[in-house]
Amino acid sequence: MPRTAETSSYKFNHTMIRIKDPKASLAFYQNIIGMELYSEKKFDDFTLYFLAFNHDASQMTAQEKDKARFTREGVLELTHNHGTETDPNFQGYASGNTEPGKGFGHIAITVDDVEKACERFERLGVSFKKRLTDGKMKNIAFILDPDGYWIEVLPGVMSL
Amino acid sequence: MPRTAETSSYKFNHTMIRIKDPKASLAFYQNIIGMELYSEKKFDDFTLYFLAFNHDASQMTAQEKDKARFTREGVLELTHNHGTETDPNFQGYASGNTEPGKGFGHIAITVDDVEKACERFERLGVSFKKRLTDGKMKNIAFILDPDGYWIEVLPGVMSL
Repeated sequence: MPRTAETSSYKFNHTMIRIKDPKASLAFYQNIIGMELYSEKKFDDFTLYFLAFNHDASQMTAQEKDKARFTREGVLELTHNHGTETDPNFQGYASGNTEPGKGFGHIAITVDDVEKACERFERLGVSFKKRLTDGKMKNIAFILDPDGYWIEVLPGVMSL
Repeated sequence: MPRTAETSSYKFNHTMIRIKDPKASLAFYQNIIGMELYSEKKFDDFTLYFLAFNHDASQMTAQEKDKARFTREGVLELTHNHGTETDPNFQGYASGNTEPGKGFGHIAITVDDVEKACERFERLGVSFKKRLTDGKMKNIAFILDPDGYWIEVLPGVMSL
């Protein structure tokens, strides 16, 4: 049952993180993570990129994709403030996992075969925060995106 | 089409943020936002709370819910490090939107009727970062959760 009738239509639509360099981040989230770019909105000072997994493998038109990003869950919004990618004084963004700036933790991707997924990430040169063999939890890994945000990689069916 | 066969099973399963006080955050995300608590995992030093919108209004057993949190998208994981809720020296968590600690931006909830949703949030005493009437974008609001994380509230069908 929905908690209340008033919230029955609500969806957890997206999560937004800032990125330094869209070239690096789009290559990472599309080619390595496997998301599709649903929409790109360029403004004067910044550009927004909306990505999601296209599970039903549907062939959507650009217009359909642009709408789909508001009607589903699991969308990732990347915000690029123009200029950070070439600014030698840009300090980078905080991952949220160390002081100062602790708060946000990570996003998480479920996969069918976590060992195979991690082998592929290794082969593609992805940085790991925690390999499957590190620590206590042997069925969870953490990789890092180009800005250093943590991405948990875990099997789609598991129990803690 | 999925980007690659290797990533066709991948899902953007969850987003994790740290919370100071589970009592305040659970009341907020359940009663005000309308999510359901799918699972609660208590460890020695911390507890993890997994919430999501139960759209199909299905009556799931506790075991089914515990599994469902790994098989879907749109899950919110709240991490409570025990003791922060009563520690007078605890400084609170960074929202990710100011220095130091800028990086993470917000989570976003789509709703059927954004005006009605905001009226209800006002009535329930929710803090706003941006009301519909503030700024340029009149169909988007930002509310604050108990830790000060930004939550975008936007209509489920819109175009930027």
